[in-house]
Amino acid sequence: MAEKETENKSRLNRHRGDFKWHGIKTRRYKLQGGDWAHVIRRVIIGHKGESAKFHLRYFEISPGGYTSLEKHRHEHVVICVRGKGKVRTENKMNTMNYLDTLYIAPLAPHQLRNPYDEPFGFFCIVNARRDKPRPLK
Amino acid sequence: MAEKETENKSRLNRHRGDFKWHGIKTRRYKLQGGDWAHVIRRVIIGHKGESAKFHLRYFEISPGGYTSLEKHRHEHVVICVRGKGKVRTENKMNTMNYLDTLYIAPLAPHQLRNPYDEPFGFFCIVNARRDKPRPLK
Repeated sequence: MAEKETENKSRLNRHRGDFKWHGIKTRRYKLQGGDWAHVIRRVIIGHKGESAKFHLRYFEISPGGYTSLEKHRHEHVVICVRGKGKVRTENKMNTMNYLDTLYIAPLAPHQLRNPYDEPFGFFCIVNARRDKPRPLK
Repeated sequence: MAEKETENKSRLNRHRGDFKWHGIKTRRYKLQGGDWAHVIRRVIIGHKGESAKFHLRYFEISPGGYTSLEKHRHEHVVICVRGKGKVRTENKMNTMNYLDTLYIAPLAPHQLRNPYDEPFGFFCIVNARRDKPRPLK
């Protein structure tokens, strides 16, 4: 399927190995901000005219990388599918391993990190309509 | 985490192997209707007071099993994570393998089947507020 497709039609995106999908581009984690490192984003559902009230994205953090430490009103649901990583939610630190799932409640400060030697990859599901993240100092 | 927890708080559900999660019960696919066979359901996000606009469920179809052939206004997003299966959407039949993703558009008739020898397991994400499925004859 072409990345430009924008109709609200049923669609299969085949996994082509290495946590990449046919028809899905690899993008920067964020366009702006310098408070993160070595993270990529693949938007699987949400940018092609789908009417679902949620988006499905795949993120991958390379060894040594981390996402922004931030909070927002919208929730996150995270499913670890590649390697393992560290996640801070509120003031708790946990390790996520294969298929562990995480619900991040509204306004909970959170950050994901990869202090390991292998890529840390996870699905992250969010509301389609959502507020902007706010960085924490 | 206890299954009865109903607060809107951040929560890690560890995978305890075999596509089961700590704190998550195994349930029947549907409470009523005889148009399906050998399907179980695990609701990972959505039954514990979470405010997200979507629910995350894991379904597993044993060899020979199938879900209802049905349609509804709400969308499905399916991610294959165990074995492989067949999916009918509209009048197309596809095989789903590991990490293939499927978007099922509103009112598209659909059915998932497992004609193989291993369990077919997949995540299915839906809107939290959604209409009732309607069976197709």
